Amino acid sequence: MKIAGTTTRSIWLEPDGWRVGIFDQRLLPWTTERMTLATTEDAAVAIAEMATRGAPMIGAVAAYGLAFGLKADPSDAGLATAFERLRVTRPTAVNLLWALERVRRVVAPLPPERRAAAAHAEAGRICDEDVAMNCAIGKAGLDIIRAIAARKDGAPVNILTHCNAGWLATVDWGTATAPLYLAHDAGLPLHVWVDETRPRNQGALTAFELAEHGIPHSYIVDNAGGLLMQRGEVDMVIVGTDRVTANGDVCNKIGTYLKALAAKAHGVPFYVALPTSTYDPATPSGGDVPIEERSGAEVATVTGESGQSVRVTRSNVRNPAFDITPAALVTGYVTEAGIAADAAALAALLEERMAA
Amino acid sequence: MKIAGTTTRSIWLEPDGWRVGIFDQRLLPWTTERMTLATTEDAAVAIAEMATRGAPMIGAVAAYGLAFGLKADPSDAGLATAFERLRVTRPTAVNLLWALERVRRVVAPLPPERRAAAAHAEAGRICDEDVAMNCAIGKAGLDIIRAIAARKDGAPVNILTHCNAGWLATVDWGTATAPLYLAHDAGLPLHVWVDETRPRNQGALTAFELAEHGIPHSYIVDNAGGLLMQRGEVDMVIVGTDRVTANGDVCNKIGTYLKALAAKAHGVPFYVALPTSTYDPATPSGGDVPIEERSGAEVATVTGESGQSVRVTRSNVRNPAFDITPAALVTGYVTEAGIAADAAALAALLEERMAA
Repeated sequence: MKIAGTTTRSIWLEPDGWRVGIFDQRLLPWTTERMTLATTEDAAVAIAEMATRGAPMIGAVAAYGLAFGLKADPSDAGLATAFERLRVTRPTAVNLLWALERVRRVVAPLPPERRAAAAHAEAGRICDEDVAMNCAIGKAGLDIIRAIAARKDGAPVNILTHCNAGWLATVDWGTATAPLYLAHDAGLPLHVWVDETRPRNQGALTAFELAEHGIPHSYIVDNAGGLLMQRGEVDMVIVGTDRVTANGDVCNKIGTYLKALAAKAHGVPFYVALPTSTYDPATPSGGDVPIEERSGAEVATVTGESGQSVRVTRSNVRNPAFDITPAALVTGYVTEAGIAADAAALAALLEERMAA
Repeated sequence: MKIAGTTTRSIWLEPDGWRVGIFDQRLLPWTTERMTLATTEDAAVAIAEMATRGAPMIGAVAAYGLAFGLKADPSDAGLATAFERLRVTRPTAVNLLWALERVRRVVAPLPPERRAAAAHAEAGRICDEDVAMNCAIGKAGLDIIRAIAARKDGAPVNILTHCNAGWLATVDWGTATAPLYLAHDAGLPLHVWVDETRPRNQGALTAFELAEHGIPHSYIVDNAGGLLMQRGEVDMVIVGTDRVTANGDVCNKIGTYLKALAAKAHGVPFYVALPTSTYDPATPSGGDVPIEERSGAEVATVTGESGQSVRVTRSNVRNPAFDITPAALVTGYVTEAGIAADAAALAALLEERMAA
């Protein structure tokens, strides 16, 4: 995707071919600053403090973080230490564990001296696969948008999204946004309702992405979606996810569930975009997913332009970061293997890929 | 209620017995600053710029604003001009029109020289009646909380509220908050989930009120309520309203509807507190209520402590200020005449009072 007119991924190798660069998303959309990661701790801090975010990006950064750890200490103990340091950074994201386990599986059988390079190469493969997956998700989602557009007689298709499941959250394209970019590029008229997504306002990132790509959009408070659906001003909802459980429940950024309820009430199709790595059939249902409770400071203080922040309350604050959208509210799962209408279809689509 | 330990109403007569004082709510909860209103324009600006807010307070301020206008020009033309200036300030609040029409009905038959004093006296009656009504709403709501508390074995009753339907929004007590204050004073253990209520964060006002009264509470983002209900951490929802239509639909601050949908999904009782003046049987349903669209600057810029503000997006913004909660999602209407379970019961309770 483009940033300031230049095509780039969200994570890249630095000129030394070993360290990796990412955008510091805490400064976006106001300032485009790149940061370099060279150690396990760099990667862990970037994930925990949300300099990088989004399930696929967390997985990619964690994979490189493990490679960095193995360069410093390639022993079994070093592997375990780095693995654990990275694992605890974000408890809800299944991609994190998925990427760490994938790299560990590759390197564990190897002699220590070969582990760091193998981990680094595997992290690179995770990145390349993510790009291909998101592009495939985009193509599947494009069919949905095209069908809605065909009924709208040239009027823009109004699509609501929550949080940022955009290219900043992935290596490229985004999950929920990939269909938007492809639809726009295909000439379909779109207008995107961008949920602000308090407390961290990741909607500003989505709006930034859409603006860079030239897609019409409106930034709205998280409270607005219900009214917009009441008025018939939303044709579909598409969101990303941090984890889809065996029964099809969707763990995603806090507030997703409220939009899913409204979509159901108004017959608005509600789609969830996910790569295979976000599918977690080992967890039976959303009720089994630990919900991360983050610092109240994220709620009490709003940060905006130029990193300036303002305190909005001095009260006691609670800050659960995710909620569960029950499978019954999901119209379809948009995956790199196609669209699944329910949990059984999703399993059929993805379980073969997971085994592969 | 108490502010900084001193019992006060939200609107009072200044020592000259004519001008009125209010708190500048734009500065709360950070700074307690009083402002004096002496002209129709003072009142209109205070309402339009939300120095004062909340349906009952808007009605009270508008009533005094009409008295001020009649002091300057007591002619029929003066009455019409002041009426219209005040009427256009906030299109959604039915109390505004109700209060203006009530004062006009009193003063129109009078000779011009008696109009200003009569309007002023009528505004005073509106205030006194509001206090009595809110206290009666509180007593009706107290019964609901007491019944829930009886099932909770000493555990706190968790009550979620949206926006500020507190004493700052009324002349005293608040509508949705009156039951909370009475329950707390009666020794029932409470914990209040305070929705932030973007874009204007009126939840900070509610939290401020609750803190002054010593009621345990947590400030949460508007996205959080769905998860809290999923977890069984909400025992009831109570909100105020700007207008209840003939069919029982509830027009209230944007985002109310999303909480009502979640409450319905989880069997959490959803109550709407309203005085008679907010009941609008002349409007058939919520679909007939004009929804105020406010400036995008309210969304793009967040204001907090010390009046400091920070820009959170440079994107195009949409800012509808209210939504409609369909009657089917409402467990009960808590009024000064008691609790009504549906629109027919509400009509039976309130229409006699309206005629009176």
